[in-house]
Amino acid sequence: MQFEPIGIIHTPFPEPIGVPIQPTGGMGVKATIEVFPEYRDGLADLDGFSHIILLYHLHRSEGYKLRVIPFMDTVERGLFATRAPKRPNPIGLSVVQLDKIEDGILHIQNIDIVDGTPLLDIKPYVPEFDQQPEIRTGWLEVVRRTVSERRSDERFGS
Amino acid sequence: MQFEPIGIIHTPFPEPIGVPIQPTGGMGVKATIEVFPEYRDGLADLDGFSHIILLYHLHRSEGYKLRVIPFMDTVERGLFATRAPKRPNPIGLSVVQLDKIEDGILHIQNIDIVDGTPLLDIKPYVPEFDQQPEIRTGWLEVVRRTVSERRSDERFGS
Repeated sequence: MQFEPIGIIHTPFPEPIGVPIQPTGGMGVKATIEVFPEYRDGLADLDGFSHIILLYHLHRSEGYKLRVIPFMDTVERGLFATRAPKRPNPIGLSVVQLDKIEDGILHIQNIDIVDGTPLLDIKPYVPEFDQQPEIRTGWLEVVRRTVSERRSDERFGS
Repeated sequence: MQFEPIGIIHTPFPEPIGVPIQPTGGMGVKATIEVFPEYRDGLADLDGFSHIILLYHLHRSEGYKLRVIPFMDTVERGLFATRAPKRPNPIGLSVVQLDKIEDGILHIQNIDIVDGTPLLDIKPYVPEFDQQPEIRTGWLEVVRRTVSERRSDERFGS
């Protein structure tokens, strides 16, 4: 299957190294999304949502290994039990805050995305669909609360 | 950019019509994911997570319109302000409950997915990354609470 970008994400992070880990780590970081003109009519009604889900191509990630040491840990984990960017299908997912939309440009906050990232899809974030009340998070149970202090290093850089 | 399936999702819904709307609508519906043998080593540690994010190819959705009347509404909305399956890049996203993993087969619950859907990625669901405390949901603000009673109809069927 073949996918085409519908826009480009512009952020303050030119390289995959030093990027916050997850939107939680990028709290307050501002960025913009340039949606290509031919798709802008599909942005109607989106400004009513405070948060949106971005799907994007992790275009700086090449290749993958099925066991990785994630940024949040010191031992190897199965790739699908991590959010590591090098994956068989390198599709990134971030829930970000939507501040406003002007002339097809989305102004967003809380960013963990490399500059120039090709956008694949925007979906509205809806708690009834996307939030779960009772959660177990395996190996991340303890460390996930420290994510806001962490940054990516060279391990998944291309 | 080109993506390849890493597995197949088997569900009780053979056709896009009559499928629950979002995992909330498919509460208690059981399904399995067959991860292809060459990717199974990447499933290590995943069984510690109660919920996972599935990204998949909405393979029964062809074409799209930038304004749609979503299942949850009676007036046209911008496509990107909806979760309608016909999109420029038809990538579906569901947060589902993971019950167990046996021989590369994931047993999952709360399903809104058509049988035979090609799986693109599995990510662990982590509240610190994927949950937002204060939310506005625009046109969905009132109707989203009724999603569990709704089913898809023919409007996005292929």
